[in-house]
Amino acid sequence: MAQNIYDNPDFFAGYSQLPRQVHGLDAAPEWPAIRALLPDVTGKRIADLGCGFGWASRWFREQGAASILGIDLSRNMIERARADTTDAAIEYRIADLDMLELPKASFDLVYSALTFHYVRDFVRLSRMIHTALTAGGNLVFTIEHPIFMAATHPHWIQDEDGRRTWPVNGYSLEGERRTDWFAKGVLKHHRTLATTLNRLISAGFTLRQIKEFAPTPEQIEAMPELAEEMERPMMLLVSAHKN
Amino acid sequence: MAQNIYDNPDFFAGYSQLPRQVHGLDAAPEWPAIRALLPDVTGKRIADLGCGFGWASRWFREQGAASILGIDLSRNMIERARADTTDAAIEYRIADLDMLELPKASFDLVYSALTFHYVRDFVRLSRMIHTALTAGGNLVFTIEHPIFMAATHPHWIQDEDGRRTWPVNGYSLEGERRTDWFAKGVLKHHRTLATTLNRLISAGFTLRQIKEFAPTPEQIEAMPELAEEMERPMMLLVSAHKN
Repeated sequence: MAQNIYDNPDFFAGYSQLPRQVHGLDAAPEWPAIRALLPDVTGKRIADLGCGFGWASRWFREQGAASILGIDLSRNMIERARADTTDAAIEYRIADLDMLELPKASFDLVYSALTFHYVRDFVRLSRMIHTALTAGGNLVFTIEHPIFMAATHPHWIQDEDGRRTWPVNGYSLEGERRTDWFAKGVLKHHRTLATTLNRLISAGFTLRQIKEFAPTPEQIEAMPELAEEMERPMMLLVSAHKN
Repeated sequence: MAQNIYDNPDFFAGYSQLPRQVHGLDAAPEWPAIRALLPDVTGKRIADLGCGFGWASRWFREQGAASILGIDLSRNMIERARADTTDAAIEYRIADLDMLELPKASFDLVYSALTFHYVRDFVRLSRMIHTALTAGGNLVFTIEHPIFMAATHPHWIQDEDGRRTWPVNGYSLEGERRTDWFAKGVLKHHRTLATTLNRLISAGFTLRQIKEFAPTPEQIEAMPELAEEMERPMMLLVSAHKN
């Protein structure tokens, strides 16, 4: 069972003020890179796992998706998501991805943004998603990058030249990581990049594309603080296909 | 064109003393993990790219491979490799992987150990290998892990708890890396993990398995200095398939 930190009042108050929660998808620097991984969604049945406030769910519908099922563990998130749409083609449901079961062959696309690193059992989840997809369906997701998550003390340091540097240790020691982010002891599950990809392959997926998010020169020009993202990847983006 | 550092006398003298060069494959801690990725080689035609002294080429033949073509840029390495076998089924050739062309559909397995990070143009190499493989053929290779290679100063540091920690910077800045290893200014080419995998996919490969080498508990018990390999991956192992 995943930790439900998003219903912690302090966490939720802080999290809700993130630019991407206030302004939506275009405030997320990785969104153009995610869009480039997404198939045409016209007429598609989509599951949005860890839908949060429903920004992506609503966007899929605007792009012509037939239906969206948004799933989130947080009652706070789902209530806000429900309040933000009257579209009957979008359904929101509270569920834990460590236990969720979706009906077989009932989705053309499973999408998930920055959620799977909260999931303890990625073997189970990968298999469940593969089963829930139709043949020809796609899984597109983002997670915190294992380089970003691995260390005991994940924060910027300086190298001997004063260059921004990210410390890595414990990379091959998979399991729980606790960090303080809007609240103390937020629980995440570290897996190596190889483990994440191999689980998908074992579940039956063909890997289509992997991205370790880095901003474009244009993004850095518009937002100079993004330059540090060139030093180490914060997010991993994966596109996988069910044959 | 790749730098031919292996024919630098200082480099060659030092390199030749590495346990894996003196004692062969079993002195390489990653060898059991590589073996687990290799298909049955009985009767197979194999190319060994960056064959060095020919340890793997000879092993393939001992396992029943039909023929092995060992390629290396270094005259020193190839001369030693030739001196170490009289088997007519093993051919050694001096060539630069940045320019090598192999005949179409003529190999069942392409193998390469710790060589592709010396190659400048991995797009060209991936396509050439894909073309040289038969349908159903496999590519199994190891490279230095991009986490290991990325930083300006790639060496152990300590975190605030005194824990062995590896610095990462410049991860998304691909290109040349110069390090001092038996000689000054050894030239390597840094690519992100995503780039390496995406190039293979674009060339037509299906990814089978990815490993970020970490020692087993038994290996650490037998050789305690290997424990530090749990902190950050030094090598990436990839198995890819041509359908």
